[in-house]
Formats: sequence, structure tokens, C-alpha cells
Amino acid sequence: MSQTRPPVEVTPIGVVRSPFTRPQDAPKQGPERDTESIIEIDPAWQEGLSHLEPGSDIWVLCHLTPRLPLAMLVHPRGDAHAPRRGLFTTRSPHRPSPISLTLVHLNSLEAGRLKVRGLDMVDGTLVLDIKPYVAMVDRPRKYEA
Amino acid sequence: MSQTRPPVEVTPIGVVRSPFTRPQDAPKQGPERDTESIIEIDPAWQEGLSHLEPGSDIWVLCHLTPRLPLAMLVHPRGDAHAPRRGLFTTRSPHRPSPISLTLVHLNSLEAGRLKVRGLDMVDGTLVLDIKPYVAMVDRPRKYEA
Repeated sequence: MSQTRPPVEVTPIGVVRSPFTRPQDAPKQGPERDTESIIEIDPAWQEGLSHLEPGSDIWVLCHLTPRLPLAMLVHPRGDAHAPRRGLFTTRSPHRPSPISLTLVHLNSLEAGRLKVRGLDMVDGTLVLDIKPYVAMVDRPRKYEA
Repeated sequence: MSQTRPPVEVTPIGVVRSPFTRPQDAPKQGPERDTESIIEIDPAWQEGLSHLEPGSDIWVLCHLTPRLPLAMLVHPRGDAHAPRRGLFTTRSPHRPSPISLTLVHLNSLEAGRLKVRGLDMVDGTLVLDIKPYVAMVDRPRKYEA
């Protein structure tokens, strides 16, 4: 593999608490996506949660721990029967920058603890960022967060 | 400020080439958002672009360089007249994990060079990841990338 760039650092702001202890147990789709998880934001950053509205949708970016060697062609959804595709057209967690992007529903928020629906992360996953969700209907090119 | 977590490393996959050399010149909105930029993906990762379709929309995650000290309450859009809000309800680039999330339109793709519309990044910005865009209309909670 050709030379790659030096890594850059990012700082986790908290951690996921969920009933899932193994990646294969975290539901990718289906009704179990509705399982509630908790995001615990570290005290240093909790004031940054001001004005977050329970009932809204938010983006959650997590730092994943790749379990496989990096491959540029992968089976989508880990399905060995599906033809391999370019990594960047898939949601594989095994990426040069293993950052997940998940839109979740904020059920409630209290003292730095966000109860969310739709976050399929194993317990202990590091949270890198939270961003506001902006509806993209009719103006997909204008969205940025 | 309370103790923060140790940083984690992510690996940039390429770089943005754009006509913008200063952050204040990169248009956040308005017609100039349509300026074309180029994303140059490093040779090590170019095979991961296979099956990317020109004409589609893709997510681009970049690593930003904060120019200000971190503040947990910020003026949205950098507008000093707007009341300050929690950082995580804004798109401020000055974040613990300074990662941008932008939906762009892929105009064309050739030899690791992606011509895109809608990416308001200064020349030289590091690109961390590219993810497929999945339409979220009617099922916002089901989106993940």
C-alpha cells in the first residue's frame, strides 16, 4: 500500500452506554434500532449542550475500533454474498478514519446524559461530536453541519 | 476546565483543492456555495472510490483547524449579534473534535480526483472520510453512515 498521511488527533467528548457489548449485537436496522442508549458527555463539555431540545434529531459522530485489516473493496453490510464495493460507498466501520455518523432522536437530556433512540453502538464507544440536524428535503446541497 | 479525555487518532485520506485561501472567504451559503472544489484522494485509498457515481450526493468529513480557543457557548454563524448557544447546537468549527460534515454533489470523478459542488472548505483542508448519502425523507431515525 502506498504511503499514507500522518494521523491527526481529535478529542472524544464522552462515551456511549448501551445494552450492546459486541458489535454483532448492535442492530443495524429493524425494530431494535429503537433501543434506547445513553450518551454521557464529560463535565468539561456539558455547557456545550445548552439549548439542545429533547424531541429533536441530532447527529452523533463516534470513534469506532476497526476489528479487521483495512480493505478498499468490501462486502456492503458485511454480507459475504453481496458483491464487493468501494469502501467509501459503504458504511463499513473499517475505514482510515473510523468515524461513524448516525442520526438519532433525543428522547431526554439531564445533567450531561442524553437518552437517545437509534444509536447502534456498543457500550463504551467514544463519542467525538454532536451536531444539529438540519432538514435536507428539497435542498440537499445546502446542508452542512 | 475539567479534565478531558486523551485524544484519538484518525487518518486523513486526502486534501481539498479550492479557490478559497481564508476561512472567511469560503461561502457558508448563497450562490457561491455552488463553486466547484476538488477532493484529491491519496493513492493508497483510491480503490475505495470504486462504484462512486457522478451525479450523486455524498457526505464529506474534513478535519478543521480551530482558530479560536474552545468555548462552550458560541454565537451561531459567528454572528456577534445572535445570542450565544451551546456549541453542540451550532456548526462552529471550534469543537473538541473539529470535524466538519458537509453534503456535496459529486460532479465528476477521475483518477482519485473528485470534483464536487457545495464544499466550503479552504484550500489544503484535510479530508477524513467520504460516506454515501442515504435519503432520509420519512425515515430520519433510520439513517446511518
